[in-house]
This record gives sequence, structure tokens and C-alpha cells, in this order.
Amino acid sequence: MAKRQEHIVIIGTGKVAQHLGLHLMRSGHKIKNVWGRDISKAKKLAKLFETTTIPSLDKFPVECLALVCVTDDAIEEVISELHADVKVAYTSGSVRLEDITDRKNLGVFYPLQSFSENRNVDISVVPFLIEGTNEEFEATLKRLAKTMSSKVTVANSQDRFNTHIAAVMVNNFTNFIYHLAQQHLNETKIDFDLLKPLIKETVSKLNELTPLEAQTGPAVRGDKNIIEKHINSISSPETKQVYRLFSELIEKEINKS
Amino acid sequence: MAKRQEHIVIIGTGKVAQHLGLHLMRSGHKIKNVWGRDISKAKKLAKLFETTTIPSLDKFPVECLALVCVTDDAIEEVISELHADVKVAYTSGSVRLEDITDRKNLGVFYPLQSFSENRNVDISVVPFLIEGTNEEFEATLKRLAKTMSSKVTVANSQDRFNTHIAAVMVNNFTNFIYHLAQQHLNETKIDFDLLKPLIKETVSKLNELTPLEAQTGPAVRGDKNIIEKHINSISSPETKQVYRLFSELIEKEINKS
Repeated sequence: MAKRQEHIVIIGTGKVAQHLGLHLMRSGHKIKNVWGRDISKAKKLAKLFETTTIPSLDKFPVECLALVCVTDDAIEEVISELHADVKVAYTSGSVRLEDITDRKNLGVFYPLQSFSENRNVDISVVPFLIEGTNEEFEATLKRLAKTMSSKVTVANSQDRFNTHIAAVMVNNFTNFIYHLAQQHLNETKIDFDLLKPLIKETVSKLNELTPLEAQTGPAVRGDKNIIEKHINSISSPETKQVYRLFSELIEKEINKS
Repeated sequence: MAKRQEHIVIIGTGKVAQHLGLHLMRSGHKIKNVWGRDISKAKKLAKLFETTTIPSLDKFPVECLALVCVTDDAIEEVISELHADVKVAYTSGSVRLEDITDRKNLGVFYPLQSFSENRNVDISVVPFLIEGTNEEFEATLKRLAKTMSSKVTVANSQDRFNTHIAAVMVNNFTNFIYHLAQQHLNETKIDFDLLKPLIKETVSKLNELTPLEAQTGPAVRGDKNIIEKHINSISSPETKQVYRLFSELIEKEINKS
């Protein structure tokens, strides 16, 4: 099947806007324009996409797809400013389709990935969760996602919302644990790189074992002696708190199963 | 340099005993015997190592190295039962060398990795933290570790202890977060595999960014609205508690930096 080129206007200037725009371009689509409340950021992004900005949302080219990559709180307002005939998809994990003012062609184009500046992502393995107010538009969004990724799924708002919660946990929270561990090592000038093989192995285990099967360590063994020694040696109150809570929760969970 | 074959007796029958024994064998060393309090486990492990058990620690073959792979609480007692001339190394991350009864040749042989049953580990990238009561024995242990791994470091007890704390955090705690996320998805029959590309990317980022630079999500944006919606939709009290604590800690840390 030949890819159908979509003409897209990117609304928003953050990391999702930047990454999705670039990947869409690479997949053969045309970024027609960029719009953003911060005009200098919008201009910078438009330059990256080899195109121009539009000065206001009432100048939106109606034949294009609006890809709304703004924060959750701004989605509804931005969409309400677009002409009723414009086809609109937004990229949020949490905003329900039914919470947005009723429109003919409205959908969700949610990439289940965390994007960082100046870091390229292999988009071909990123799951896209798609939803649309009508079958035809949903199919259009599905087709568009499939030009970038091999993992495209239609998911309702509730499933997407729950997936987003789990995504925050496995990305934001684990990453914060890496930060606390790094802080702890920095205090004693130990190189954080020492932990990287362990970090990689922890993730690799998920290919063969459930997280519960893979769980090891002092809390699994009920080794309260070591847990207390560790907590007493941690200087950061936040890290102490996390260490204590996780040790309690892991021990409780292991004794349950 | 030709590898010097060591003759080793494995003391203990758990996962560390099993994995280290096998890797030592593969690296050309001889597992001479196995000892364990649970005789049936010891026999099983001895069979795996193509050798036999010794019935008691006073039958220890003095010319061998004793590799003590028992829980922290049992280390001192086990070592005290060995003849004073036996060279002894234990595999704990937390037990200080100075806390063990004074011996001529005592050392630490700590692999910074989490071992699971029925799962092979690439030992060549596992950091080994080595320590010894005298330079010659420390050098012996270093040489032994180098026959398996390219990442061998001499570290004092305090540094090893601090590294162990950080290791528990980046392995045990992140793995428990995977478990909570899986539980949350299971309730709504969403496949945990959907999260794997995100989990992998979270770890890959550590090659280029510090954890703090890589931190994204609602707590970084200060999006209290979404955080509350997420917490309200989580059914497990433990997951609610973890979600709230991490959101607070991340927001606090981001506002500090």
C-alpha cells in the first residue's frame, strides 16, 4: 500500500510537538505550519520543519490535520478555537475524548513514549494508542500512525488513561529512583556508571520473568537488620523515606503471594 | 597471562552460590566441593558443579579457597567454623570486613548484580568489588574476578556498602514499580508488554542524560490536576501511596534545581 501523504499543522512547541513533527516528516508527511502561543518557540520549530508559523488559530488551513501537542489543560481551549470542519487529533494520554466539545472529526494520537530534548527515539517500536469520534477518522489516524510505527492499537479513553498511569510509574518514578541512587553515590564520589549493568539486567529480566518473579533483595528475604543499617546510612531524608516505604511494600507483597 | 586455576569450595546453596559457581567453572576454575546447611540443596548444587558435598565445615580442604555465599547474618558464624589457615572470601555487599573475626586471609568478592533462578547473566560486564585483609590475598581475589569480568575494582567496605544501597534502589525498587504498574494494567486487562519500549527508553536515556535531565511527566510540569485524577483512578492503596509520594518528591526536586 502506498503511503498517503498527510498535510499536518503542528499545534504546540514542546518536546512531543518537536519529536512527532520530525518523525512525521521522515515518514513522508508534510508539516504545513506550526502554531504556538510563544511565537519565538513556534518560529524555531517551524524552521526545524522547513516551514512557517500561522499567526492565529483562525488562520488554520482547513484542509490540514491539526495535531494538538499542548499540555492537557490547554487542549480543550485550543481545539475550541479551530473551525468546526478541521480534523483534530491530540496527543494526550489522560484527556478523555468525551471531555472535549463535540466535533465531527476528533481523535487521539497518543505515543506511549517519553521524549527528551536532543535525543532521538526509535519511533518504529513506540506504541501509538488511537481513538476517534468516528470510524473513518479513526482509520485515518491509525493509517497515519502506521506510517511511523509497527505498534498501533485502537484504545478507548479509559484504557489509554490507565496505560498513561502505568507509563508515569515505569518511566517517571523509576527514573527518579535512578536520580536518588545517583545522589547517594555522588556524596561518596562513587561512579553511577557502576550500576548500569544492574539497571540493564533488571529490565532484561522482564523478557522472561514477571516483575514479582524477578524480585530479589533484603526486603524479599525479610532481612530487617540490613534494611535498618541501610536506612541509617542514607543522608537524604527523601531517600530514607523511599527506602523504608519500598522495603515495607515489597515485604508485604512477597508474604502475600 | 595464563589463567591460574583456583580450587574453590562453594559455601551456600542460594542463587549467588549457583551463579558464581557456574561462572567460575566456565572460566576454568575447579569447584572442589559444596557445603550447605540444607544437605539436599547442597547435593543438588554439587551435582550441577560435577562434584560432591563436604559433610561439615571442619572437613574443609585447607588448600582451597572458601567462597562464602550465604546470607549476611550467617557469614560470621560460617567463617568462624573454618580452620584459621583457610583463605576465605564472602560475597556480601553490606558486611564490613572489620566486622568479621580477625583472620589472616579474608576478603570480599562482591558481584554487583541481581541473580534470578534459571536466568543466565552476562558475567563479563558485572562489576566485582574486591577487598582483602592483605595485599597479596586482595590481588588473588582481583585476579580471580578478572578471569570472569572486565569490570573489577578494589573498594573499601564503606564504598561497597553505599554501592549496595544504591543497587537495592535501582534494582529492587524499580522492579517493584514494574510490579505495581503490571498489577494496575492487569485490573483492566491491558497488556504490560505495551510498556516495554518505554521502560527500555527510560534506561537508554541514562547513556546520554543524567536522571534529573531525563525526568519528564506530570510532576515535572507541576500538573496537579492530572496527578489527582490519576491517584483517584488507582484502586490499590499501595500504588496510590507510591504515586502520591513520588509526585511530591519529583516536584520538590525539580523546583529545587
